[in-house]
Amino acid sequence: MASPKAAKEGGERGVDPNLGVDYVVHYKIPENERAEAEASYVQLIEALTNVGLTSEVRPADDSSLLVFVKMASPDLLREQAFSSRLQDWLHGVRTSGPNASGDLATSLMEEPVSEAERLRLVYLAMVRTKEEGGAGITPGVGKWKYVASVFPLHDRKFNGAWITRLSTKYLLGNEDLDEIKDKFGEQVALYFAFVQAYFRALVFPAALGASTWFLLGSKFSFLYALGSCLWSVVFFEYWKKKEVDLAVQWGVRGVSKIQLPRVEFEADGEAEDVVTGEKVKVYSPFRRLGTQLLQIPFTVACVVVLGGFIATCNSLEIFITEVYTGPFGSILPFLPTVLLVTVLPAFSAVLTAFAKKLTDMENYETVDSYHAALVQKEFVLNFMTSYMPLAFTAFVYLPFGHLLTPYLDFWRAAAQMLTFGEKELSTQDFNINPDRITKQMFYFTVTAQIVNFGTEAIVPYVKRKLTKKAKERGIVGKVAEIGVKDTPEEASFLSKVRAEAELEMYDVTTDYREMVIQFGYLSLFSVAWPLAGCSFMINNWVELRSDAFKIATGSRRPIPWRADSIGPWLDALGFLSWLGSLTSPAIVYLCRGGASGSIGAASNVEAWGLLLTILLAEHFYLLVQMAVRVIMGKVDSPGLQRERRERFEMKKRMLGGKVPISGAIGSQGAVAMREKLAQSALHEEAGLGVQGSLEDR
Amino acid sequence: MASPKAAKEGGERGVDPNLGVDYVVHYKIPENERAEAEASYVQLIEALTNVGLTSEVRPADDSSLLVFVKMASPDLLREQAFSSRLQDWLHGVRTSGPNASGDLATSLMEEPVSEAERLRLVYLAMVRTKEEGGAGITPGVGKWKYVASVFPLHDRKFNGAWITRLSTKYLLGNEDLDEIKDKFGEQVALYFAFVQAYFRALVFPAALGASTWFLLGSKFSFLYALGSCLWSVVFFEYWKKKEVDLAVQWGVRGVSKIQLPRVEFEADGEAEDVVTGEKVKVYSPFRRLGTQLLQIPFTVACVVVLGGFIATCNSLEIFITEVYTGPFGSILPFLPTVLLVTVLPAFSAVLTAFAKKLTDMENYETVDSYHAALVQKEFVLNFMTSYMPLAFTAFVYLPFGHLLTPYLDFWRAAAQMLTFGEKELSTQDFNINPDRITKQMFYFTVTAQIVNFGTEAIVPYVKRKLTKKAKERGIVGKVAEIGVKDTPEEASFLSKVRAEAELEMYDVTTDYREMVIQFGYLSLFSVAWPLAGCSFMINNWVELRSDAFKIATGSRRPIPWRADSIGPWLDALGFLSWLGSLTSPAIVYLCRGGASGSIGAASNVEAWGLLLTILLAEHFYLLVQMAVRVIMGKVDSPGLQRERRERFEMKKRMLGGKVPISGAIGSQGAVAMREKLAQSALHEEAGLGVQGSLEDR
Repeated sequence: MASPKAAKEGGERGVDPNLGVDYVVHYKIPENERAEAEASYVQLIEALTNVGLTSEVRPADDSSLLVFVKMASPDLLREQAFSSRLQDWLHGVRTSGPNASGDLATSLMEEPVSEAERLRLVYLAMVRTKEEGGAGITPGVGKWKYVASVFPLHDRKFNGAWITRLSTKYLLGNEDLDEIKDKFGEQVALYFAFVQAYFRALVFPAALGASTWFLLGSKFSFLYALGSCLWSVVFFEYWKKKEVDLAVQWGVRGVSKIQLPRVEFEADGEAEDVVTGEKVKVYSPFRRLGTQLLQIPFTVACVVVLGGFIATCNSLEIFITEVYTGPFGSILPFLPTVLLVTVLPAFSAVLTAFAKKLTDMENYETVDSYHAALVQKEFVLNFMTSYMPLAFTAFVYLPFGHLLTPYLDFWRAAAQMLTFGEKELSTQDFNINPDRITKQMFYFTVTAQIVNFGTEAIVPYVKRKLTKKAKERGIVGKVAEIGVKDTPEEASFLSKVRAEAELEMYDVTTDYREMVIQFGYLSLFSVAWPLAGCSFMINNWVELRSDAFKIATGSRRPIPWRADSIGPWLDALGFLSWLGSLTSPAIVYLCRGGASGSIGAASNVEAWGLLLTILLAEHFYLLVQMAVRVIMGKVDSPGLQRERRERFEMKKRMLGGKVPISGAIGSQGAVAMREKLAQSALHEEAGLGVQGSLEDR
Repeated sequence: MASPKAAKEGGERGVDPNLGVDYVVHYKIPENERAEAEASYVQLIEALTNVGLTSEVRPADDSSLLVFVKMASPDLLREQAFSSRLQDWLHGVRTSGPNASGDLATSLMEEPVSEAERLRLVYLAMVRTKEEGGAGITPGVGKWKYVASVFPLHDRKFNGAWITRLSTKYLLGNEDLDEIKDKFGEQVALYFAFVQAYFRALVFPAALGASTWFLLGSKFSFLYALGSCLWSVVFFEYWKKKEVDLAVQWGVRGVSKIQLPRVEFEADGEAEDVVTGEKVKVYSPFRRLGTQLLQIPFTVACVVVLGGFIATCNSLEIFITEVYTGPFGSILPFLPTVLLVTVLPAFSAVLTAFAKKLTDMENYETVDSYHAALVQKEFVLNFMTSYMPLAFTAFVYLPFGHLLTPYLDFWRAAAQMLTFGEKELSTQDFNINPDRITKQMFYFTVTAQIVNFGTEAIVPYVKRKLTKKAKERGIVGKVAEIGVKDTPEEASFLSKVRAEAELEMYDVTTDYREMVIQFGYLSLFSVAWPLAGCSFMINNWVELRSDAFKIATGSRRPIPWRADSIGPWLDALGFLSWLGSLTSPAIVYLCRGGASGSIGAASNVEAWGLLLTILLAEHFYLLVQMAVRVIMGKVDSPGLQRERRERFEMKKRMLGGKVPISGAIGSQGAVAMREKLAQSALHEEAGLGVQGSLEDR
């Protein structure tokens, strides 16, 4: 076995507990496919070596290996960084061009290479195709099917300090975000920036909600609906500006255009890239649009299947809890919940599979656009499962409860049949329960958030602690069996890596989804329970820290991708904000009698009143949106200013030696020349001409 | 008197009928302010001379002079062009940077200077402030109050050929637009491009309207409303794209940012320009926003005053034509029209003065932004005067005619009083006349357009011919009187110039206004008369030619300004297109019984039905807009592609000599380096290490 050179070289960087390892490839060697896996393994090492990555191997457990990868030399890293930054600059992502001395190369290398950039470059060297100068390793796909995962190693010391720091701070500052960016990449940093901005913005709806609840003492307040609508517009527009600003500050604006190409992309032709003039594989956007139209039936299917099922379960629940008084009264109320918990995930799984299939068919060029399209489709599912129960209560049960009577009769008959009509079923008269929506909102905004925190942060933590103990003994035993024993100096490091290899991959999408769905509760239904804002504020303070905790200890270290936007979630936010402008006033209009107990008295609900409310509310929304955009347009964002300035300065510098009249920028040169010409002209003819002609008259 | 040098020098350019004159300054010397005017005149000549413009003077009539101005030398012009193009490039208006040889200066001068560019540069040299290297002449303002006008001379030969060419063509091609651009500047060319695009787009509503009218035989068709709404969205989005494309093709994209500063602008502080770092005068955008809020009461005032007056006149007209049968029956119907024609302009004038005052107070930095703000306010007035009569008929008279009865009774009582109640007033029962809206639409879309053509093109032409004859004799007489006689070789040229000095200034705003208001009739009310599209098509074919005729013969040659957008009219188009999505279906809903004569039967008009129609129609509009934007977003505009390509190539060229690894763009350099590194690494350790560790197991 080779000596752990990589580990020793890593020592150059001081007390690096990761021994200089950039990435770990977790390589599976299944017992029954040993020969194939080993042949493929040789190819892996060769591919890595070909792109200048050194590797070192250690056993992980009895059927897998840990391959430690690092960049062969600092020069190679510098060269990679230069190449990547040059490409950024060519595509307009970086604005700073040649520096004062006019040397582009040095100016591009002036900025130090952050940990995140290094890790990204090394990862790209591994996953890029051979034509692009990479090793072409695609974990889990094709001949790389034995590559279970490729991940960088956590910096435990930093992580510990980071979590402590976050937990003792009320708000994250810019330096915190920069730190996250340099450690985990812009994508993760942008998520934290978003949660932070959202958390701060929540102060307004929380305060408004609390005053509505405690001072006005009313649930269905037009004033709150108005304020909430206003807030959601302002927040949405603010974030749109903020994210551009952050992207510019972090030097990643427009980076989504030059993201990683998708391996699975199938071109239907070749064309010259209109910008670079290189030959690129293309796929007709109109052919794709044709496929994308399938999203319409998909959405309809989601709405019908999920909506129908949730409505059924809800009406059943209403029957059981509010009408039915027969036997099993203490168990039966759980029936609809059980149905929802068991059947809904099955429906969702089928539809999610469909969504994936559809997105595959849409055949996107880049990983980012594929991901965005998938998220959009999944959002339809999330939307239905999250908001349908509340929508049912708000728009059917509360205002038109009496219309439910036939359905309830259906359930009554069904129940009667099940009990074989032995005796008259014991029921009571149906009365609309005005607290139902508040209870539901409480469930979704408090109970569910706490449960979620538990399943997301605490359960995995406990589980990990337990399984780790159990497994550690097991592995040590297995490794010992096959005759390999970790050297004492590597033992603790290897056990850390083995533990990290077992962790889940961190997916920022899940966290975004949670936040956006939460924003939706606030925007769509919080008129029914104005304290939602307060609840979310508390939740999000914890959420941000628990997400950090999850990244630091509960997941493998994420690949530090770059990002210049929250992408598909921005559209989702905009949609929810707009929809909120319709639902909030509609709910208020439909349920406004609530406080006095006269809810459901459909007598004061008129179709034209509802339509007028919606019409006015929506136009108020659109008007506010326009006004906010105009006002925000006046405020120049510091990031964009910097970008323009840098672009201008680059050009000015370009002029540098080459153009004789450098003053022409300020037009002094031109003035000087003009003056010279003008004076001669003055003396020569014009002056005389003028005098002459005036005297002639 | 000096010999006409300028004229002789002009001869260099071959058979230039304008004798090389770039501009003519029409200078008034009022009899009673002679001394002051002459002193100021000397300053004028000096100022011109200081910026390298030679001048020559001839009498215009007994109280004014014609000062002929031209650029002193071709070198100075080249230098001015270079300076201007360099500024464009620095501000990102021009994308092409240094050429293949890397020399920015030559690359900027490669493009020849068009006539329009030359005239613009000369004009700028005259009107720019001294600090900016200009002569600081502001016609009609301050010490330049005797400068009646500054205008370039028409190229009669070109104009004649141009008009003939346009009149014998069905459609304008790109080469026609380029020709207009090179002669009259991008602003005028953009207007022609717009009318052309609009004319072509009209094919759809014209065809749809004709089929609705002749095949379906119905006026109030939902199908037509739908199609018209769809069309207006597509046309609007298409034009937005098209205008960007044209701007890029003409190399003027973003030019609105570096337009002429306004002399009247008053700064409230100085700040560093964030881009160029120069000190610039600024005015707080929030202070301006405060002033802009006054637009709200202004708009309300417009709506109340103009709307109220128009509604009054309309109800009076209805009373007279449809109820009143008493004496003076043949004259009285003209009363409301007389009122409208006499009083409405007075109201409009007052409100326009207010609009100007408001815009002055808003204190804009640039001429363009001032102009846009003024146009926006005037649009409110235009909107009310143009559409209010139709809106009154469509939304009050037709559906709720019976509600007018009390008003009609008021008129009856008023009439009774006027006749001193001598006898019972002879009236008939009020019956709603379903043809009223069609008649009105016919008036606005056919009669008014023809009348407008007459007043705009034919009347001025005839008037000019007549006054010219009368005046020519007068001037010749006057000029002869004061002892000056044109030399024979100059006589015809001077008489041409004198004639041009008498012409109106061409204002493209008026023409845009006409087109946009026309678009509004189509979008808002054409459901009431679907043939409007056909009428507009015919009108616009003529309009485009008559506008050309007006520019060529009826106006002074316009200063060839640049423009990258139709500016404020774009917002107006968008607004009208959106409003059309509300009014069209609403009119159809309210008047749909029209064909069968049951119009005004308010029984089938329900508030909820109307609201639902509007709600659905508007969301259909918003949905279509979104879809059209998505689809249009897929189509890359050739202009933008070119821009991106040029930007990329400029950067690539910048790399040229300076960066050693030029291949780094395609990353071959990086690959080569990587390969070298990789091979040594392979042999050294990784390969062995791999084999070793696999065998160890």
